[in-house]
Parts: sequence; structure tokens; C-alpha cells
Amino acid sequence: MPVEGGVVISFARMNRILALDVRNRRAHVQPGVINLDVSKHAAESDLFFAPDPSSQKISTIGGNIATNAGGPHCLSYGTTVNHVLGLEIVDEHGEVFTTDLDGPGYDLTAAMVGSEGTLGIVTSAWVRLLQLPETVRVWLAAFGDVDSASAAVSAIVAAGIVPTALEMMDAVITRAVEAAFHAGYPTDAAAVLLIENAGFADDMDACEAAVEAIAKDHGAISWRTAAGAVERDALWAGRKGAAGATGRIAPNYYTQDVCVPRSKLPQALRAVDAATTAHGIVVGNVFHAGDGNLHPLLMYDKRNLKQVAAVVESGNAILQAAIDLGGTISGEHGIGFEKREAMTQVYSTADLATMARVRDVFDPTRALNPEKIFPRGTRCPEVAPPADPTARSA
Amino acid sequence: MPVEGGVVISFARMNRILALDVRNRRAHVQPGVINLDVSKHAAESDLFFAPDPSSQKISTIGGNIATNAGGPHCLSYGTTVNHVLGLEIVDEHGEVFTTDLDGPGYDLTAAMVGSEGTLGIVTSAWVRLLQLPETVRVWLAAFGDVDSASAAVSAIVAAGIVPTALEMMDAVITRAVEAAFHAGYPTDAAAVLLIENAGFADDMDACEAAVEAIAKDHGAISWRTAAGAVERDALWAGRKGAAGATGRIAPNYYTQDVCVPRSKLPQALRAVDAATTAHGIVVGNVFHAGDGNLHPLLMYDKRNLKQVAAVVESGNAILQAAIDLGGTISGEHGIGFEKREAMTQVYSTADLATMARVRDVFDPTRALNPEKIFPRGTRCPEVAPPADPTARSA
Repeated sequence: MPVEGGVVISFARMNRILALDVRNRRAHVQPGVINLDVSKHAAESDLFFAPDPSSQKISTIGGNIATNAGGPHCLSYGTTVNHVLGLEIVDEHGEVFTTDLDGPGYDLTAAMVGSEGTLGIVTSAWVRLLQLPETVRVWLAAFGDVDSASAAVSAIVAAGIVPTALEMMDAVITRAVEAAFHAGYPTDAAAVLLIENAGFADDMDACEAAVEAIAKDHGAISWRTAAGAVERDALWAGRKGAAGATGRIAPNYYTQDVCVPRSKLPQALRAVDAATTAHGIVVGNVFHAGDGNLHPLLMYDKRNLKQVAAVVESGNAILQAAIDLGGTISGEHGIGFEKREAMTQVYSTADLATMARVRDVFDPTRALNPEKIFPRGTRCPEVAPPADPTARSA
Repeated sequence: MPVEGGVVISFARMNRILALDVRNRRAHVQPGVINLDVSKHAAESDLFFAPDPSSQKISTIGGNIATNAGGPHCLSYGTTVNHVLGLEIVDEHGEVFTTDLDGPGYDLTAAMVGSEGTLGIVTSAWVRLLQLPETVRVWLAAFGDVDSASAAVSAIVAAGIVPTALEMMDAVITRAVEAAFHAGYPTDAAAVLLIENAGFADDMDACEAAVEAIAKDHGAISWRTAAGAVERDALWAGRKGAAGATGRIAPNYYTQDVCVPRSKLPQALRAVDAATTAHGIVVGNVFHAGDGNLHPLLMYDKRNLKQVAAVVESGNAILQAAIDLGGTISGEHGIGFEKREAMTQVYSTADLATMARVRDVFDPTRALNPEKIFPRGTRCPEVAPPADPTARSA
């Protein structure tokens, strides 16, 4: 369909890996490429794409860029912005331009990543690939209460150990996951830590001993090392499929996505508990504990409008609690319609005005993904109660 | 001095470290703080600020941010942009706003870093601090010719080893440095590699053995491990004082700053040789070999206008050679007046127009550091021959 004065691009088939540059460890990809397919393709050259949102089997590189997606491994490897080397972009005017991390001039790559499509449409991206680690080891530590598990998380990082992943799941989640996947998670513990480290084989025994000692010092009631690749893959399949597994609890779930300083995890989890209990909502917690990124899954039935309203209110209370604890309103899922009014709580008027003026450069008429990110004074009907809150995977 | 409709800020004393946040490993600093003073202050808590331009004794955090400064250790740690967590900025309108790496919305930090003051004036910065390494080891490898040393550089990185620094110096430089510093550099070698690795003590012997084997496989004529902190510090003082040491060769020097793909180092060094020989200019090479960032120092006497013209022509020829080899026109010293016309050779018209439109947001009348970065069709008289080319430390 021609656009007057602009360019016409068919996005339907923009799902090709254009180039794999093994020597310089990067790939040139179209935005419609599925996240996991980049790593599958790169694995033939012992490389991988580090950002691994739990949705990586279905989410695209373009979507990962739009939301600056993270995932369990961003604790060690950083989020999508740390793995994008350059972008080709079309803005509202139909101008095609490129951003380049290495060159002089203004580095606009980071501004584009996480802008939720409001600054332009990414038509291709150069992404960084990392060498596959020599060894991967996965451990499970179970705790009798959530506070002990949270304290262990802080202690591991404070000891100077940065595991490649440090995930927490509560009993609601481990029971749902075990029923669905039989992955080997303990179902009798209040909190389970899934800890992964990847690197040189020589370092692994010392790392395992250090992490195990910290876990036990903080009251771990059980400790297990995954026996091999099959067990590791099963545990990860359970973790990444946790949101889907909650279908056994309720027909719908709403994922909140907030961050708090790691040291505030116990308070944040108590706030989640209080916010959901007050409204009679069942909640399961499965989240990136290492970087303080909570993902409470609020269970509900969308045919029950009272439950829908209660979920929205609980979600808002959790958002407010995260702000009050010095955290922020989105870890990796973005702002969209849902959280745009909360932007005024984490940014000053001048900060928001600056962002709006940057948007004027690329999208003066707000044609690109309109109504997103920036507050309008009114909530959009899509997410206001009693409509269905956006259900997203954790 | 009041500014109508704007804000008045005294920059003269903006040289304080406002906060050192040891737990979260970051510092809040004013732009006038000297780079090295951040690391000195943080060392009391076993932390350091990684970007270490050779000018770090005199260059400021504000200047480092403006040019996205690198230094010998950026091979391993990245450049300034990788160590800035957030900025407080005043733009041309007098608007004060902040950028924040962790928050949602547009990430403008990276666009500000390296913008050479054309988007706003940084009034404070949150910078990342790293933990001081357990062990540091420094090695010297001497080679009979530059090509062998270059091949060793590529081979070290290709072997999956990323030293914390991998510097090259030619005989012109090692002789000048030895005369000035008596640091212990061999003066009979065509090229010397200064290699540093920092990390865990347990890993060092294996790393040393691997790097030594690669150096010798590539024809190293001598190999030495610095015996301790005193020898290491002396070698680094020589390397970082190399530009000053060239005062023994000529009263003035002009530093070119270009990057080429690491694999093209031999061709780039031959181009430097050809470009200077053709004009009868003495050149010394001291540079960040590991990341392909060349710093040829062209020696001259500014009272000799023919030499000044020859240096400018040689410098331009080196710039063109870097572009032709697939490199870029600045590694870390910025564009300024000097290289703005060359921007059209590495960016498309659309790319440059996009940058100009971003500048419109923050600096519509071009009041902030005017005439910098962007091409104007004519060179600025400050750097056109026969005036004095900007002399900068390597």
C-alpha cells in the first residue's frame, strides 16, 4: 500500500538472518526473526545471542529491541541494549537512517532500544554474539521461607559472585510447574532458587562450593546440582514455561513487572502478598531475583469482572510499592498504555518533556505506536478496569 | 553572569566527588573532577573507575564524557559510555534534565556521551565503579618487525584471550620513552607489545603461558614479565608519558586518532609510514593495538610553516587510509573542528540529518560548542594549514 511521500515496506516477511559474521561475532538480522532462532543458528559456530526472555521461542528481535528485553541471563550478560551494535530505522518521515555503536557522532542506538516503536521502525539490526561457555552448571536451593531465600540472593552477589542466572520461584509456581513439566523442582519449599553459572570448567567446583555454603548459611533446607544437560534443560523448560503452567490454577494471569533494589526483595515480596491478599487474588512469584526484577503472576478468570477489577487494583498497588521502595515501574516488559501514568512518578516534568522533544524529531505527529509510554492524564480504556489486563509471559 | 531566560551556573568549581556509593559500586561526580582522582578516591574501597585515557592525570570526567574517552584498558572494560549510569544535563533552553540507564522511557545517556558538548552541558554524572582485580601482571614482548607484532595482537584476541590492555610502541617511541623515563623498554626492537592482564591469581600462570607461546610463535625476539608493582608502574608511566617524551625528537607533535579492523593493522601501519615518509615527517607509533585504535604522533616544529602544512597533509592521508581500510575517523579523541568534513565519508546524508535533528531538540541555535562535529563544507581556519594542528596526548 503506497504511502504519500514515504516509503513502502512489507514487514510480513522480515524474518531472515541476513548475515552471520563469525569472525567479528555478530549477526545482521531482520526484526521478525524469532529470538531463539538467532542462538540456534549461531550455535553451529559455538556462538549465542545472550538476551533470553522467557518468551524467546515466540518473541522477535524487533520486539526485544522495542522493549529492551532482559530474561534470566541478563543478570550476567545485560539486557538487549548491551547486545545491539547498530540499527537500520525508518522514522515517521520515511527517512531511513542507521545508528552505529562504534562510530563518532551521536550514539542513538540506546535511545532507540526500549523506545517501544515510538521513534521509528527497526528494519534490521546488527546484534552481538557471545562465545558459548565451556561449562554450564545449574543448582537448586530450597528454603523454608521467602526472606531466607532473598537474603541468600543478596549474599551471593555481595560475595562478588555474579551467576549467569539467579531466579526465584515460590511454592505456588513450583507446584504448577511440577504438575505440568515434572522438571524436578521441590514442591514442599516456600521458595526455590534456580542458580546457573557458566564459564571455565576449572572455576566451577570453587564457585559451587561458595554458592552452596552461602545458601546453607542462609538456611537452605535442600541443595541439588543438576546431573547433566538433560536435567538442566528440564529445569529451564520448567522455569521458562512457568507462566503457561499457571493455567492449572486459573484460566488467566496478569504479569506485573517491577524492579526494586536487590536488598529490598523481602519487603517487595511482602508488599506483593499484602496487595493480593487484600483483594482475594492468588499470586505466584517467579522472577529474576538476582537483579531485583519481580514478576508476580496474578491469577484470575477474565469472565469474572470483579476479579478483573481486583487484579488491576492489586497490580497498581504492587507498582506503587515498588516505587515507594526506590524501584522502578518496568524491568523489561515496557510501559505501553498500562503504565504510562506512572511515568510521572519516576521522571520529572523536565525529563518527560525532553523525551517528548526527542520524539518530535522522529515522530512529530505521533503516528508511530501512538499513545504509548507518555502520560495523557487518562488511562486508556484497554487496561482500565473492568477490561482484561494484558496477559504477558513472565 | 546572568543569562536572559536561562540558568546561571558557575562551572569553575564543579570539581567535587558528590557521593561514593560503595554498596552499589558507583560514584556521583561533578564534571570538573579529574579522571584519576575518581579512582584514587574509590581505591580506599577497593574500587576503580575503568576508563583511563593517557591524559587521566589532567583530563576531567566531563571531558571524558564529551569525547567518550577510552584509554589502554578499554579493550577489556569498554569506553566511557559503558561506565556512565546517568547524567544531569542543562540544554540550550536552560532546561535541567536527567538521563537514567535503568529506567523506562528513552535512554538518552549514550546519545549524550561522545556528543562533544553539542547537546547540553553535563552538570553531574553517576559513574560505575569496578572492583580492583586480585592480581595484575604485565608482560613485554619485543619484535624485529611491526608486521609480526601486529600478527601476534590478532592471534592473542583470536585465541579468546582478552587482556586488560594490549598496547604497541615502535622504536621511535621506545627510544624517546627510555631516554625520558628509564622504564625498562627495549630500544633495539622494531615493535614492543605492552600486555597486561588483571583478574584472579589462579588464572594468571595459564594466561601468561598462552600469551608467551603466541608471542614466540609470531617471532618475538624477547619476552619479559614485570617483576612487581614498581616495574609495572614504571612501564605504564612510560607508556602514558610517551607523547610528552617525544619532546626530545621535535618541539611539537600532532596526534592522529583513527581505528581500523584489528586484522588490518599491518596495512594501516604501512599507510602511516607511507603518508609521513612522503612528506619527510618523523612519526612515532604508540597505540591501542588490541582494539585497532592507532595514534601516530607526527613530529614537527610549529615555527616551520612548511612542516605544519606537511603534518596536516600527512594526517589527512592517514585519515583517508583508515577509511579506505574499513575503519573509522576517531577512536576516542572526537571530531571537533578537525575531522568534521570527514563525517560525510562514514555517515550517509540521512544519518547526519538525523543527528542534526536530534541536536535541534537540545541546541536549536547551535549555541552549545558551535561548529563542532558536523560538516560545513569548509574547514575551520583553526585547523587548516598553515595554522597549528591541535596537539593532543595519545
